[in-house]
Amino acid sequence: MSHNSFGHLFRVTTFGESHGPAIGCVVDGCPPRIPLSEADIQAELDRRRPGQSRFTTQRREPDAVKILSGVFADPVTGEQVTTGTSIGLLIENVDQRSKDYGEIKDRYRPGHADFTYDIKYGIRDYRGGGRSSARETAMRVAAGAIARRVVPGLAVRGALVQVGPHKIDRSRWDWDEVGRNPFFCPDAQAAARFADFLDEVRKRGSSVGAVIEIVAEGVPAGLGAPIYGKLDSDLAAALMSINAVKGVEIGEGFAAAALSGEENADEMRPGNDGPLFLSNHAGGILGGISTGQPVVARFAVKPTSSILSERQSVDRFGHEVDVMTKGRHDPCVGIRAVPVGEAMVACVLADHFLRHRGQVGSSPAWPQTPPGGI
Amino acid sequence: MSHNSFGHLFRVTTFGESHGPAIGCVVDGCPPRIPLSEADIQAELDRRRPGQSRFTTQRREPDAVKILSGVFADPVTGEQVTTGTSIGLLIENVDQRSKDYGEIKDRYRPGHADFTYDIKYGIRDYRGGGRSSARETAMRVAAGAIARRVVPGLAVRGALVQVGPHKIDRSRWDWDEVGRNPFFCPDAQAAARFADFLDEVRKRGSSVGAVIEIVAEGVPAGLGAPIYGKLDSDLAAALMSINAVKGVEIGEGFAAAALSGEENADEMRPGNDGPLFLSNHAGGILGGISTGQPVVARFAVKPTSSILSERQSVDRFGHEVDVMTKGRHDPCVGIRAVPVGEAMVACVLADHFLRHRGQVGSSPAWPQTPPGGI
Amino acid sequence: MSHNSFGHLFRVTTFGESHGPAIGCVVDGCPPRIPLSEADIQAELDRRRPGQSRFTTQRREPDAVKILSGVFADPVTGEQVTTGTSIGLLIENVDQRSKDYGEIKDRYRPGHADFTYDIKYGIRDYRGGGRSSARETAMRVAAGAIARRVVPGLAVRGALVQVGPHKIDRSRWDWDEVGRNPFFCPDAQAAARFADFLDEVRKRGSSVGAVIEIVAEGVPAGLGAPIYGKLDSDLAAALMSINAVKGVEIGEGFAAAALSGEENADEMRPGNDGPLFLSNHAGGILGGISTGQPVVARFAVKPTSSILSERQSVDRFGHEVDVMTKGRHDPCVGIRAVPVGEAMVACVLADHFLRHRGQVGSSPAWPQTPPGGI
Amino acid sequence: MSHNSFGHLFRVTTFGESHGPAIGCVVDGCPPRIPLSEADIQAELDRRRPGQSRFTTQRREPDAVKILSGVFADPVTGEQVTTGTSIGLLIENVDQRSKDYGEIKDRYRPGHADFTYDIKYGIRDYRGGGRSSARETAMRVAAGAIARRVVPGLAVRGALVQVGPHKIDRSRWDWDEVGRNPFFCPDAQAAARFADFLDEVRKRGSSVGAVIEIVAEGVPAGLGAPIYGKLDSDLAAALMSINAVKGVEIGEGFAAAALSGEENADEMRPGNDGPLFLSNHAGGILGGISTGQPVVARFAVKPTSSILSERQSVDRFGHEVDVMTKGRHDPCVGIRAVPVGEAMVACVLADHFLRHRGQVGSSPAWPQTPPGGI
Repeated sequence: MSHNSFGHLFRVTTFGESHGPAIGCVVDGCPPRIPLSEADIQAELDRRRPGQSRFTTQRREPDAVKILSGVFADPVTGEQVTTGTSIGLLIENVDQRSKDYGEIKDRYRPGHADFTYDIKYGIRDYRGGGRSSARETAMRVAAGAIARRVVPGLAVRGALVQVGPHKIDRSRWDWDEVGRNPFFCPDAQAAARFADFLDEVRKRGSSVGAVIEIVAEGVPAGLGAPIYGKLDSDLAAALMSINAVKGVEIGEGFAAAALSGEENADEMRPGNDGPLFLSNHAGGILGGISTGQPVVARFAVKPTSSILSERQSVDRFGHEVDVMTKGRHDPCVGIRAVPVGEAMVACVLADHFLRHRGQVGSSPAWPQTPPGGI
Repeated sequence: MSHNSFGHLFRVTTFGESHGPAIGCVVDGCPPRIPLSEADIQAELDRRRPGQSRFTTQRREPDAVKILSGVFADPVTGEQVTTGTSIGLLIENVDQRSKDYGEIKDRYRPGHADFTYDIKYGIRDYRGGGRSSARETAMRVAAGAIARRVVPGLAVRGALVQVGPHKIDRSRWDWDEVGRNPFFCPDAQAAARFADFLDEVRKRGSSVGAVIEIVAEGVPAGLGAPIYGKLDSDLAAALMSINAVKGVEIGEGFAAAALSGEENADEMRPGNDGPLFLSNHAGGILGGISTGQPVVARFAVKPTSSILSERQSVDRFGHEVDVMTKGRHDPCVGIRAVPVGEAMVACVLADHFLRHRGQVGSSPAWPQTPPGGI
Repeated sequence: MSHNSFGHLFRVTTFGESHGPAIGCVVDGCPPRIPLSEADIQAELDRRRPGQSRFTTQRREPDAVKILSGVFADPVTGEQVTTGTSIGLLIENVDQRSKDYGEIKDRYRPGHADFTYDIKYGIRDYRGGGRSSARETAMRVAAGAIARRVVPGLAVRGALVQVGPHKIDRSRWDWDEVGRNPFFCPDAQAAARFADFLDEVRKRGSSVGAVIEIVAEGVPAGLGAPIYGKLDSDLAAALMSINAVKGVEIGEGFAAAALSGEENADEMRPGNDGPLFLSNHAGGILGGISTGQPVVARFAVKPTSSILSERQSVDRFGHEVDVMTKGRHDPCVGIRAVPVGEAMVACVLADHFLRHRGQVGSSPAWPQTPPGGI
Repeated sequence: MSHNSFGHLFRVTTFGESHGPAIGCVVDGCPPRIPLSEADIQAELDRRRPGQSRFTTQRREPDAVKILSGVFADPVTGEQVTTGTSIGLLIENVDQRSKDYGEIKDRYRPGHADFTYDIKYGIRDYRGGGRSSARETAMRVAAGAIARRVVPGLAVRGALVQVGPHKIDRSRWDWDEVGRNPFFCPDAQAAARFADFLDEVRKRGSSVGAVIEIVAEGVPAGLGAPIYGKLDSDLAAALMSINAVKGVEIGEGFAAAALSGEENADEMRPGNDGPLFLSNHAGGILGGISTGQPVVARFAVKPTSSILSERQSVDRFGHEVDVMTKGRHDPCVGIRAVPVGEAMVACVLADHFLRHRGQVGSSPAWPQTPPGGI
């Protein structure tokens, strides 16, 4: 049991505070002989890096990752590959402005972890949110970059599908568009609306929530396990562990409550490598086990509590105070949550891929031969 | 790592198939000297028991639980109390009708775990859904009955807040009403609508989804831990592990995406034992740690795939088949999911209560005395 | 984390007290499609069963095991096979004589767990030692019977190599002899000495310690993992968890302290499927990973504290008392510890077999082709 | 499940290779508000540091530790204290001479992990032993320095009690002597013999084994848990995980096999805070739970395989080769294993202290009041 680890066979442990000297993680259980360089990880980190548009925090962190262990030159090819031992990763913090936070040293921002850390531990590193800062998610993205390489053929992509009250039009979904706007938004028209809306939010020092959708393709059928090792159960835990997340859905999610059994069931016809599903209400998971269809998960992010308006609160001595948050913040943390959500889904799938291989070995033949032959 | 266990310090491991000789569980880590009798557990099981109204499956299971270990007479009072050792619980299955299931022996019900179990393991106990049956949730309720006793002052209650497209009116919420109708519905008028709607669903052999809300009161502040031991992360995993669940929310949930930071933050004023919160958008959890407010979680249940209409599918030999499900089934598994959801929340809270006590011991004083005195 | 479970991918959880209604266990993570019947498990249980000679306790327990879940008829062969879901096992206790224990209800036997259970939990089931009784080891043997089937080609055998001061002569080691005497002793002459010695011990109501050696053949190279998942580390934990064990050795064990590096290193020559080792001081494990040689472990069992002589002690109220133990006991628990030790080694190997398959998949080719060819 | 982590509530995860850029660890679950500075950890590291006498490796590593997270200035005292979040520790490697190892790049040292890492992973960092090097134990000592602060009143000390065939005379045991000789030896006369013997071993390029004894005082009664969370089971795993360890004993250890029940049982008389034990054959643990007496554990270390004599072996291509090891090595790794063993025992005790507090809260009153009063 570990407060700062997740996963079982593919296991990630992180450390570090927002304004400490560095953040880091240990990736344990990565299979050997997988090509891995710092550049591979850096490419993913750059997608999450702050300060890339006016819509995210202006903190300037290069997020330059160092691999400290667990890779070595392949004796034949000379390429850097994993060795099967634990992979240590480190990112130094370079752009802290801790003095911005003196004002909240003793005060609790409404809606923030300030109070709960204090009441739990009796002490907290208040600078930039300390351990509760979304800065920790950089290490998730780094770990996710490794996880993506563990499952052959896996592709995990994410998209911002709602900002505040503005939703995308799913009929305009275009994965290529995701890389063309600062929101990871798959609908170009929605992206334009997001920009206008967020400019307005940002200018009045407010913040707003969002919904992110993650789609994993190339997930082999059979990952996950009854009853408490369900793939969707682990996805829910992983996504809910991201800062500010308040809801998680698989496939139809809450909309499934309003459907009939006839509408919701995904019919099947014979296919080449397994059944051909005629729909994917299930989001690629039945009975906690992957079907071979794309795994689809969504999560809702609340608006951050770091806003410029004064709110009623208390301080740690029990006094009434009014609190507003200066410092540099994301008006919509949902944007940078897209690569973080991808990373978490990749880590869960890598873990279940190894767990399945451990318990079952290789999947049984399908379709099976009827007794007496075909 | 265990597929059939959940929790860490308060840990539950279950076994058993729907039509096997018995189902059971082991509750490990329960503190010693807690009064516990079979009647205590039976009372909770009776709330989940099938066949209590025309709206649930007509299978007749008394669900009589036996305690096989882990309790002993207190040397002073003579009362049965826990001893700190593992508690074995057993329920015999008595009303199986396995022949009802011969037809789906080789066929996959669309939307059901039939296919995924087969493709993962190459074999499945198809009778009544085998291990994937909601029958397993009886053991969750039994374990939950013990968990409820672990946290002093804890009260966990659940309610059905949506059936198909029909939602309750929250302004009519009355906890007393929950015990008066067969739906655990807190709104008497909604309960009447649920009855009409479900009669119609049942008569046409269909099924329908639902939404359940769980409220835990008496949760001490400080439970949960950053970053991957967050209370909401574990709640999400626990609720998503229940059969047919496709979405989980904490507090505002997905609605938080549309709120501004000003609307969503729960303001505070000084209180007697901690801050007095002016609202509870957070659902009692900030930064993964409980605030002392009620913990509020919701989950959505899909319509079951066991319906009387024929649907297109395949069999395990890769042939096209049409499938309809006979046998006895719940038209809305969401109803009996209410006590199951309560049990899962209770188990997670018991686990985090023990984990917090382990790491931190007792909570620090609050409010703290300012450096120079008051 | 679980007090009553061991293993990771192959995981066993036990429950039950010596004089409760039943003992049981859940085996989680067993691969699917492994033939398994109650008779398979019973055969192993019968080797450990009490009352089979005058040298073990006279309690008469048939130890009839029931499989409650996790097996099903193979659709093609009809044979009972595992399904990949959790396997519940149950043994009813039938020959309790709880009144024998009234005298130690409030008294602590020196060298027994009576005191520590009481000081930890404030309560204990004192009848027959309750949870601390070696009766729990029946479930280990049952789980071990399943574990043995998980690793193809694995053979785990044990032998009693020392009773009190009497050691076997290793030059007379004969595995066939193990089944011919009531001690699992591989040296016929030593077995005769054991019998005389134990008759004398038994008659004076005393008890004596022993040393058991376990040899596992057919262990593939590559099982185990640095640094804290070492195969020998898990073997040490597993064997030390057996009642009354005070020491564990791998290969040379403590004797290695007196050797030089030249003497201790196992030299190698090329072999057909790997290196041919010229000796096995290492006990089949180097760097925590199996070499492919037989895995050799030994453990020492103390004399039980249940003796007929009066010893000075205290009761739970802090009074001076003298204690002697009536009831039925093993004069040398080391004898029945032989199948228990085998079972623990089998379980650890099964777990590591699945863990290795999970992380690494299949082992790399060896010998490797030199760059540039042979 | 994690290959590179140990502990549950107090959990340590390490990474790093002998000749990589750095080694590090994450300590998770440390309680908050414990004073902790880099100097506190450095003091322990300095006891293990290489190159402090001619009897250990001449590699010059300052082993300067950096705390990267998890500590913060106490708001009242200004002192650096733990915050309850994960503690990241880092030590840079500065004195690698990797070219010394080119010769064993493709060759397997007999008795070394070279072969097993290669057969498991298909690749290994051969420089200085890579991950299998005892260099990793520096992080254990660092973690142990934190663990020592977790249990109030705990004192863990270690001593070298045997080098090759030379044992100490226990009647001359003097803890003060341990700090006066380069062997952590409690017997001044034995230390002199160790020096002569090791000079001879060192000069002929050989190596030798050793036995280390660890004594923990101030261990509260009640730590540990049946059945698989036994304190001695976890100690055995922890000590067996140290490089080169081949045996572990608790209390009497293997000598208990030759004792009678009368000799072995530790009699008790009433004491002030619990029973007064008249002996400690049990090594402070009964039924897997601490008695309140000192916890005594011993472990045997084999001679390292890095010797200057040529031994028969094979290379990774299956060829016959002769191998000798140049480079800088400890002729007796048992010496520096003393602070490592202390650290492991401290970590296990810290973990069990937190686990006990989690499950039980505070210990029950003892002695108990008899029903009806005294």
